[in-house]
Amino acid sequence: MNFAPTARTTSLRSPEKLRYDTATAYAILDAAHICHIGYVHDGGPRVLPTAYARIDDRLYFHGSTGSRAFLSARDDGVDVCATVTLEDGIVFARSWFHHSVNYRCVMAHGRARLVRDPDLRHQALAAMIDALADGRSADSRPPSTKELAQTAVLELPLVEVSVKVRSGAPNDDPEDASAPYWAGQLPLSIVAGEPVPDTGVTRPPPPYLG
Amino acid sequence: MNFAPTARTTSLRSPEKLRYDTATAYAILDAAHICHIGYVHDGGPRVLPTAYARIDDRLYFHGSTGSRAFLSARDDGVDVCATVTLEDGIVFARSWFHHSVNYRCVMAHGRARLVRDPDLRHQALAAMIDALADGRSADSRPPSTKELAQTAVLELPLVEVSVKVRSGAPNDDPEDASAPYWAGQLPLSIVAGEPVPDTGVTRPPPPYLG
Repeated sequence: MNFAPTARTTSLRSPEKLRYDTATAYAILDAAHICHIGYVHDGGPRVLPTAYARIDDRLYFHGSTGSRAFLSARDDGVDVCATVTLEDGIVFARSWFHHSVNYRCVMAHGRARLVRDPDLRHQALAAMIDALADGRSADSRPPSTKELAQTAVLELPLVEVSVKVRSGAPNDDPEDASAPYWAGQLPLSIVAGEPVPDTGVTRPPPPYLG
Repeated sequence: MNFAPTARTTSLRSPEKLRYDTATAYAILDAAHICHIGYVHDGGPRVLPTAYARIDDRLYFHGSTGSRAFLSARDDGVDVCATVTLEDGIVFARSWFHHSVNYRCVMAHGRARLVRDPDLRHQALAAMIDALADGRSADSRPPSTKELAQTAVLELPLVEVSVKVRSGAPNDDPEDASAPYWAGQLPLSIVAGEPVPDTGVTRPPPPYLG
């Protein structure tokens, strides 16, 4: 399955890095925890980091009902660009010009709308908890009516989506091949440390943290 | 030193997480490799991940002179929101509601302008290489005239800046203290693997990669 490219999801530069397959997009979205949501406020750009989750072909994020982005989404929704980036490594080329970063990036454009259906809100919030650790929603307390009233859930349909991937070795020019510099990649990965229990917690960390 | 708060750098929500000291902002900017640049194109939001570097109270990022964001910056500059986020851990609360992410985030608003001065362009490009590994610019080939002509460098003054930090334990409600769930933090960090030399590279990795 592929997303259909649009003016917003094609690029004047590096078109060879662009992909539109849903499988790669979903894998990146499911591997990261934070997306950067761009929206326009008073004519100017805003970019907020936020937690999110994917359910099928929809992205969900939440926030306080008091926040500006979500206030503006109350009626017709808010146009967003949601970008998720995983940094996989640093690329050291022989030339400054070809230095780069290896990364996987998903960019989703569209109108995010408030979720009003109570069942879907509950499902989306559960997915956001499980995005932090698979199985966590069943092992913590679901929201009260009061907590639900303080939580806005936005839904963004994953329709206008592009994936950009840069991987592998530096692309130095052939004439630099014998330049007297080390060249290659430094892989980077996100690693979890030991769980730190909160005050008063004596039970062992759950297996889904391991 | 503190940044002066403005309408764009204050928040209706979680004001206790906001800070304005330059020291914290610079430390976050100097620790990360990628920022998410938001700008408005055809009235809609765009968020691009890009490498960057800080020199004193200015942020520099570059791109192909063929890219949309940079084309629009040719004349008067382009209004951007540059957001840099470091994810420090996942916060598991007893309640769904208080689950969170520990993070450090810098958000810089302002007008980014093309750098035209050749010396400053060179200095900014060197800083971008050294942001990938300290000392690398002296150990790789500087750009040719042709390469320079293909590279746009944008400068964003760090004036309208906020810092948001969430750290530490979950903030569960007191009535959840004895709920039958593990609660605490899972620390996350970015770890470098072993350098992978490019084809034909036989010299050892430079010390600044270690």
